[in-house]
Amino acid sequence: MARAWHLKSRPSGMPTDENFELKDIDLPQLGDGMVRVRNRWLSVDPYMRGRMNDVKSYVPPFQIGEPLEGGAVGEVVESKADGLAPGDLVLHMSGWRDEAVVPARGVNKLPDLGVEPQKFLGVLGVTGATAFFGLLDVASAKPGDIVFVSAAAGAVGSVVVQLAKAKGMTAVGSAGGADKCDFVRSLGADQVVDYRAGPVLKSLAAAAPDGIDVYFDNVGGDHLDAAFALARNNARFAMCGMIAGYNDPNPASFRFIMRIVAARIRLKGFIVFDFQSRMDEFYREMGQLVASGAVKAQETVVEGLENTPDAFLGLFQGANTGKMLVKL
Amino acid sequence: MARAWHLKSRPSGMPTDENFELKDIDLPQLGDGMVRVRNRWLSVDPYMRGRMNDVKSYVPPFQIGEPLEGGAVGEVVESKADGLAPGDLVLHMSGWRDEAVVPARGVNKLPDLGVEPQKFLGVLGVTGATAFFGLLDVASAKPGDIVFVSAAAGAVGSVVVQLAKAKGMTAVGSAGGADKCDFVRSLGADQVVDYRAGPVLKSLAAAAPDGIDVYFDNVGGDHLDAAFALARNNARFAMCGMIAGYNDPNPASFRFIMRIVAARIRLKGFIVFDFQSRMDEFYREMGQLVASGAVKAQETVVEGLENTPDAFLGLFQGANTGKMLVKL
Repeated sequence: MARAWHLKSRPSGMPTDENFELKDIDLPQLGDGMVRVRNRWLSVDPYMRGRMNDVKSYVPPFQIGEPLEGGAVGEVVESKADGLAPGDLVLHMSGWRDEAVVPARGVNKLPDLGVEPQKFLGVLGVTGATAFFGLLDVASAKPGDIVFVSAAAGAVGSVVVQLAKAKGMTAVGSAGGADKCDFVRSLGADQVVDYRAGPVLKSLAAAAPDGIDVYFDNVGGDHLDAAFALARNNARFAMCGMIAGYNDPNPASFRFIMRIVAARIRLKGFIVFDFQSRMDEFYREMGQLVASGAVKAQETVVEGLENTPDAFLGLFQGANTGKMLVKL
Repeated sequence: MARAWHLKSRPSGMPTDENFELKDIDLPQLGDGMVRVRNRWLSVDPYMRGRMNDVKSYVPPFQIGEPLEGGAVGEVVESKADGLAPGDLVLHMSGWRDEAVVPARGVNKLPDLGVEPQKFLGVLGVTGATAFFGLLDVASAKPGDIVFVSAAAGAVGSVVVQLAKAKGMTAVGSAGGADKCDFVRSLGADQVVDYRAGPVLKSLAAAAPDGIDVYFDNVGGDHLDAAFALARNNARFAMCGMIAGYNDPNPASFRFIMRIVAARIRLKGFIVFDFQSRMDEFYREMGQLVASGAVKAQETVVEGLENTPDAFLGLFQGANTGKMLVKL
């Protein structure tokens, strides 16, 4: 017997406690090639809100009456799979519950990087990998580059800032409001753009008077247009998300998009899951940076399975600084 | 004494005859290492519109009261330069005039590819090289790809269509009006989008029901937005020019730009001059395709130096099919 959070109804607008239900479930028999995992840490992430809508995206929607899913770190308590033994810590996608029976191909044994296990749900997980591959691979950022990153106080952006500094780049981060800008500065950013204090283009032109070589885009909209305007020749944009457009019914408009041609700008959209086969490389490099303290990971920890929806809802209420986690 | 077109005033929006002035000029003395060239063919190209604005770009702006410049094929009539003799046909940048005295390093003797000399202003010149490097290098188009090209009846677009077909791709071309669409079909395009007959997005969705792998962008605007909407995963866009924006003071707006992320679209701006060091490769491959008839070069020829501005303005009024040339 295990307990798992189910989607009781689809939220319209901001989700509430009413959309979630904690129910007892029977776990399947432990077949060959499977493991039973007791969860220790659960991840709650903004993207899960999208899966609560019944729309096609790069991950399928959650179904009403079915258990929710999400990243989790757990301990193997029973194994019928080669290479996995009781006591092993594993990363898997059967979160939002206390225990799961899963096929071995659905779990990844945590590599021994000398870091706390919950780091694999944040800076050493999807968030960190998004920053890592987006900056270094998609945008081909290299030492000496002037890197602009939007939403620099967010989960991904705050890692991009630290990675850029660790790699000898100049980092310019945008955030909304003085507190968040202070936080971005504390991460090591050379310059900060407060997008609430005035037009992004004007602020960015002041923060990066020589222009930018790289733009790590988390928001689209006028941040993206400012990046077009200030891109140096052969600038590279990693297109990670366009939050500005998600809730805006008006089409985005760009005054400087034609600079793509003259400045030979390269834009490339990416999804971190495309880099699954290169996680070893990520663990090796990022593990060192985290272990050495060059990249720090802020966490907000909520205790207890029963508080998982509250942790999730807190993401939309500013309850977290850095990665939001549930500890079981 | 020679006659040369000068920039009389900077156009705002669409240029008019009033912006141009034909004036007599004194040619400089023929010094050592220089040649006197009598122009036979002049090229007029959309990019020249950009040079009429007083803004920094990849080529410096034209200056008011100064002669205009552009590609030209001429015949050497007097030479004080080694390796160039009267009768030689050369390619150079002192167009918009009947005669020029230029340093030998500013001219290129036409290679002997067995084709008419004006071809070096089109399919074997900048326009052909733009199509060639844009499609095969910038967009990494490969056999089997579904290629969408805008302004497919234009100088660059018509070569893109033929190159795509010669390389085993599916070609979808857009053009304005039934006549131009017929022309694009005659080039071998599998499907044609008439952008005057209805919204580009709707027409393109019908012409390319499985989506597109490559977009060769000559126009920006709603063509680009339709390409965002219909791009398949890992689509590649070669951003060659945004003619829709050249004369339009309003910012371009895009409803589907956020598909860059989910579909992992790559956009790359380019300028053909970046490929100068690879012209041998281009002459070798394209020379064969032109000589064999696999790639045909349509031309619209306007006669007489005095009609050069009209030829140029015609580019923005759909007056040309294929390469627009002025014959002296």
